[in-house]
Amino acid sequence: MTQIDQIMQQAATACEQYKKIPPAQRAAFLEAIGAEITARREVLVKTAGEETNLPMARLNGEIVRTTTQLQKFADLVKEGSWVEAVIDTKPNIRRMLVPVGPVVVFGASNFPFAFSTAGGDTASALAAGATVVVKAHPAHPRTSQTMFEAIQAAIVQSGMPAHTVQHVTGDYHTGKALVIHPFTTGVGFTGSLQGGKALCAYAAEREVPIPVFAEMSSVNPVVFLPQALETRGAELAETFAASITLGAGQFCTNPGLLIGLESPAFTAFQQQLGAALEKTPPQKMLHPGIHTAFLEGRTRMLAHQEVSLSPKPVPDFDTNAVRPSLALTSGAALLANPALKEEVFGPHALVVACKDKAELLAVLKGLKGQLTTSLMATEEDLAQWREVIDIQVTLAGRIILNGAPTGVEVCAAMVHGGPFPATTDARFTSVGTAAIRRWVRPVCYQQFPDALLPDELKDGNPRGIWRLTDNQYAR
Amino acid sequence: MTQIDQIMQQAATACEQYKKIPPAQRAAFLEAIGAEITARREVLVKTAGEETNLPMARLNGEIVRTTTQLQKFADLVKEGSWVEAVIDTKPNIRRMLVPVGPVVVFGASNFPFAFSTAGGDTASALAAGATVVVKAHPAHPRTSQTMFEAIQAAIVQSGMPAHTVQHVTGDYHTGKALVIHPFTTGVGFTGSLQGGKALCAYAAEREVPIPVFAEMSSVNPVVFLPQALETRGAELAETFAASITLGAGQFCTNPGLLIGLESPAFTAFQQQLGAALEKTPPQKMLHPGIHTAFLEGRTRMLAHQEVSLSPKPVPDFDTNAVRPSLALTSGAALLANPALKEEVFGPHALVVACKDKAELLAVLKGLKGQLTTSLMATEEDLAQWREVIDIQVTLAGRIILNGAPTGVEVCAAMVHGGPFPATTDARFTSVGTAAIRRWVRPVCYQQFPDALLPDELKDGNPRGIWRLTDNQYAR
Repeated sequence: MTQIDQIMQQAATACEQYKKIPPAQRAAFLEAIGAEITARREVLVKTAGEETNLPMARLNGEIVRTTTQLQKFADLVKEGSWVEAVIDTKPNIRRMLVPVGPVVVFGASNFPFAFSTAGGDTASALAAGATVVVKAHPAHPRTSQTMFEAIQAAIVQSGMPAHTVQHVTGDYHTGKALVIHPFTTGVGFTGSLQGGKALCAYAAEREVPIPVFAEMSSVNPVVFLPQALETRGAELAETFAASITLGAGQFCTNPGLLIGLESPAFTAFQQQLGAALEKTPPQKMLHPGIHTAFLEGRTRMLAHQEVSLSPKPVPDFDTNAVRPSLALTSGAALLANPALKEEVFGPHALVVACKDKAELLAVLKGLKGQLTTSLMATEEDLAQWREVIDIQVTLAGRIILNGAPTGVEVCAAMVHGGPFPATTDARFTSVGTAAIRRWVRPVCYQQFPDALLPDELKDGNPRGIWRLTDNQYAR
Repeated sequence: MTQIDQIMQQAATACEQYKKIPPAQRAAFLEAIGAEITARREVLVKTAGEETNLPMARLNGEIVRTTTQLQKFADLVKEGSWVEAVIDTKPNIRRMLVPVGPVVVFGASNFPFAFSTAGGDTASALAAGATVVVKAHPAHPRTSQTMFEAIQAAIVQSGMPAHTVQHVTGDYHTGKALVIHPFTTGVGFTGSLQGGKALCAYAAEREVPIPVFAEMSSVNPVVFLPQALETRGAELAETFAASITLGAGQFCTNPGLLIGLESPAFTAFQQQLGAALEKTPPQKMLHPGIHTAFLEGRTRMLAHQEVSLSPKPVPDFDTNAVRPSLALTSGAALLANPALKEEVFGPHALVVACKDKAELLAVLKGLKGQLTTSLMATEEDLAQWREVIDIQVTLAGRIILNGAPTGVEVCAAMVHGGPFPATTDARFTSVGTAAIRRWVRPVCYQQFPDALLPDELKDGNPRGIWRLTDNQYAR
């Protein structure tokens, strides 16, 4: 038996017990993880600062995001309606969601807390009743270990099975062994397109298929309509300079493609945006791998003769540090060269100037799947450009009007997901309480007496949850 | 441009219009299909009888099932809450489900109406706002064509886009071309494990992955507990003889594995069941391919030395006609030989006699994913065998207490789905109103003014649907 066999066996055995733990206790466990994280806040922020180059303010904010996220899932579990109970009394068939089994979570490098060891994938899986095996991200192993210790303390304190969450370090061989293991029932991943595709390829080798929820690549196209540029181009330049450079551009929702019509107002906007970016001090990227990939990606993008750079490149002196940049191209060039649609992960955006409305719509229609797409528009713009929204709905999981895409709220309505290659499965979200649905499947009970049904499906509704009974919603 | 290119282009163009059609009109269209089917009832039943060997009474019943199914989806669309509207007001983010795009449906041979051209896959996709390309099942081409004519009449009458539903005939090359086409966004299939796996393999060649919902292989294990056998063994034998032979055993929910403890009562049950099967007249199977596969599968199963046959085989004289059969083996043999767990599609079941409770639980735990699993038990049985239900929940999408698995109600709570190889995705159902979820994905709108939002998400709730607003359900 290999180490991975042992770990997955433990995860499966723990799941048999964990999934039966009543909702109130499961919620208390999620809250206990939050409390243990808060208790370790100083060391977590210090360690993550050393390992990721992220500033203290950001890391402190991310701790709050992580504990708030755990609290939201705790609240969801306490309330209980998330199981989607459906009851038909004639014939007597009753459905609810049940956990699928042990889940493997790959930590992300760009959110060492909120999308990592105790991040959204882990929180949503634990909320669903699934046990979790975390594969630590190699870029922040000490942070991950400390976070795991917080979880372990919560496990002991809450009386959960010892192997409810396990922590694994290793290279891609370890990752593959986890994905192909017969006891694994689902995978959560946030990272590169290459990484996500590799996990899907591993999963394709399995005898029994499992879902791989990989959140991967998105250029988050933003459309700037004429009147919005004319009336508040300078303000938009400031907003997007901040969005492009936030966290050294290392956000999956970073706006990488800025699309508008050729016009003096769009030209002015580009100049203002370029100037704002030039003023932004260099920022250290997360780790040498991402730094190198960014420089190479930007160089590759700028090598296309139809792309020009604004502002002029400034050499980056410090290790891992980069300056933001803005490239310019035309709608015709983007239509002719699919390579210009690729993501450059970091503080870089490509401005696409289209010669007319038809070209702009064609550019938009020709894009791949995205996490987000935004629209900067006045009411008058919208009256004339309604079809842009129609196209945007087909492109992404989240459409933002007059706002930057960075900043992903953890709420019930959030969709952090979208058509491939943004994610592997546009039907699910990895942020927000609906993320719990990735780790469950429906089961129905036919002709069961009340005593043998889960509380959620019993006649008297002892859990007091919302249910669809004979096609009527009631609590 | 190939013929398939043209068809998929038409499906995509039609979808742009069709998805915007208001719910009331979409519902009226589904009802019109039902009316057109009813108007063609006589010719449909006659044609299907000639092409499938299914008896008139069954086919007449299946017509009603098909039109009722269309009506249920029409009602769902009219009511409107199925879009799962979620509204968070701070920040202003609003989510609902939207159709994915054109869907390819493969007709099933064993349900020429209810799971075929105008069956559940087509009805649920149309309800979702997706356009449909039906690949007719080659075993009933004329039935499929007549059914398509009914749909076409409804399209014209309801003023839907001409290519809302299209009909294609052809071999597996055609099927592959449809699955790999870039405009295809989802696939529905009911059929063999081999067929479903082939479609998944085609889909794996795509650049952009799409879901293939294949409902494939299930032996639908039934557990007979001791007191149930003692108190009503004879009655159970009658019930299961009828279930095994229903429709010549050509149901995906056919009970193929009958598991109990070695005992005089279980032996008596087997004898009574065997005798009841012997009395069942020969039945014609759907087509020569299924007939041959059944005979070969049964022969392969009986070739295992640890399997014996009861009653004795009787030669089948008529073309395509078969007699039901019952094979016997032990729990130990099933545990030792995975081949005994394979499905024999047709009127055949394997009785598994276990030497004790531990062996029975091991047999159950060792099974693959199933559509259904049933339990025959008295209250006293259940008090001592509760862990059987725990295992059954991990095995299947539907658990039936004291009933046969054949008969799949089209209702809101139904789960006709289950872990692989029963289906390719246990998170969805292909029967019941929840089948609509296979053809949609969530989209959220951030910071949109009321006027630009779909009605389902507007402040005043003009559709009057159930929505989760700031974590409170209300209509």
